[in-house]
Amino acid sequence: MAGKNKKKTCGILIIGNEILSGRTKDQNLSYLAHWLNKNLGITVEEARIIPDIESKIIKTVLELSKKHNYVITTGGIGPTHDDITAKSVSKAFKRKYSFNKEAFFILKNYYGKDFNDPRKKMAKMPEGSRLVLNPSSAAPGFKVNNVICLPGVPLILQSMMNSLRKHLEPGSRIQSITISCETVESEIAKHLEKIQKRCKKFVEIGSYPFFRLGKIGVSIVIRSSKKKYLHSCHKDIIKMLKIKSIKVYKDI
Amino acid sequence: MAGKNKKKTCGILIIGNEILSGRTKDQNLSYLAHWLNKNLGITVEEARIIPDIESKIIKTVLELSKKHNYVITTGGIGPTHDDITAKSVSKAFKRKYSFNKEAFFILKNYYGKDFNDPRKKMAKMPEGSRLVLNPSSAAPGFKVNNVICLPGVPLILQSMMNSLRKHLEPGSRIQSITISCETVESEIAKHLEKIQKRCKKFVEIGSYPFFRLGKIGVSIVIRSSKKKYLHSCHKDIIKMLKIKSIKVYKDI
Repeated sequence: MAGKNKKKTCGILIIGNEILSGRTKDQNLSYLAHWLNKNLGITVEEARIIPDIESKIIKTVLELSKKHNYVITTGGIGPTHDDITAKSVSKAFKRKYSFNKEAFFILKNYYGKDFNDPRKKMAKMPEGSRLVLNPSSAAPGFKVNNVICLPGVPLILQSMMNSLRKHLEPGSRIQSITISCETVESEIAKHLEKIQKRCKKFVEIGSYPFFRLGKIGVSIVIRSSKKKYLHSCHKDIIKMLKIKSIKVYKDI
Repeated sequence: MAGKNKKKTCGILIIGNEILSGRTKDQNLSYLAHWLNKNLGITVEEARIIPDIESKIIKTVLELSKKHNYVITTGGIGPTHDDITAKSVSKAFKRKYSFNKEAFFILKNYYGKDFNDPRKKMAKMPEGSRLVLNPSSAAPGFKVNNVICLPGVPLILQSMMNSLRKHLEPGSRIQSITISCETVESEIAKHLEKIQKRCKKFVEIGSYPFFRLGKIGVSIVIRSSKKKYLHSCHKDIIKMLKIKSIKVYKDI
C-alpha cells in the first residue's frame, strides 16, 4: 500500500455546545483514535472541542487542515438550525454549499414521501465532496480536501468506518505493549526514565497509576512503530521489575 | 461577589498521550464543564487535547491563557518522566521551575520516610504558584497567572474542587431547561429555527436526538444567562409542541 511506512497524522475536531457544557460526554475521540491507529496506522496528534459557531469552525478547520494529513470532524451535520458544520466547512474552503446529487438520491430513497426540507438539508455540503456512507440512518458524511465530516451520534459514526476507510491512506502503525505491575509510580520512576532516555528516538514510555479489580498498581505502556525497539524496551522493563522484585499482573 | 454578572470563560487543556491514543477515555472535561458552570458561572468555551510534548504544552497554554479568563490543565503532574506539565508551564511563563515550600512540606508530611526523589518532584512547580490542595493523595495542583494545573486521575481531580473554587472568580451562570419529546428532529427543525431567530441574542437552542429507555425522541436544550428569556423561549417551544401534538416526556 502506498505510504504504508510513512507517518500519517490526524487532528480530531469535535463540534458541539453539548460537549462543552458537560451535558454530553464525548465518546468519539477514543473510538476514532483507537480505530485509526489499529486499522490504518494513522496517529491522532491533537483534538479540539469547539462550540457550534461558524467563525470558530472555519478557523479551526483551516488550522488543523494545514497541520495534519487528515482532519476528522464530528457533530453538526443533522437537520436542525444548530447543525452548521457542512456550511461552515464550505466557507472555510471557499466552495459552494449546495445539494450533493448522490446524497440527495440516497436520502430521497430512504425517506420516500417524508423527505421534507430539514431532511433535504442533510444532502447539502461543500461542492465536490465525496461521500462517507451511513448504513444506520442514511445521512452521509463527506470528505472535502483532507477534511472528513462525520455525525456526532457514536453508534451512527461507528457504523460508517467501512466507508471511511476508503478515504484514508494508511501509515505506519504504532504498536504498543502494556505491562501492569504491583507498585507505585515513584518506586519505578527513575528506572523508567533511564530506559526512556536509552531508547528515546524510537519508543515512547507512559506510566499510568490504576486502582481496579481491588488491585493497586501502575500500567507501563510502551509504544513504537518499530517492532524491534518495542521488544527490546519491553525486555529492559521486565528485567528492571524482576531486579526490584515487583510482581507483574497477568490478569489486569 | 465581584464580577458576578460578567461572563467568565475557561479553556480546558487535557494533556496526555494516553487520551490521544484512545487508551484512556477522558472523564474530566464533562465533569469540569458542568461543575464550573453550576458552581461558579464559568463557561468552558473550548477544549484541547495534546500529547506530553513540551513545545506543544508551552504554545497551547500561552494561546489559551490569552483568550480566556482561566485555563485549567489536567494531567502530567505526577512523579514520572512523562509528567512534564509543571516544567512546561514554568517555561511558558518564564518562571523558575523550583520547589514550592508549602507543597514540599505537605508531601514530606504525607510520605514520611518514603519521601523519595520522584515524590519530591511533585513539589516542583513555577515559582510564585499558589496551591490547589489535594485531600486524596496529597500532591497539590497549582495556579500560576490565570492557569491552573490539576492531575489527570478523575477521582483525585474531583476531590480538589473545594480548593479550586477559591482560585476562581464567579461569572454569570448559564441556566438551562431540557425538553425531551416524542418526535424526530426534522419534524421540528423549522419551528425551532424560527424560535431561535426570535431570541437569538439571549438564548441558545440545541437539538439532540436520543434513543434511550426504549424511547426514541429529541431533547431540546435551551440555555441562557437571562432567566426571563429562558422562560419565554421555553413557553414558545411548549406551545409549538402542543400545536403539533407532540408528546413531551416527563420521565426522560
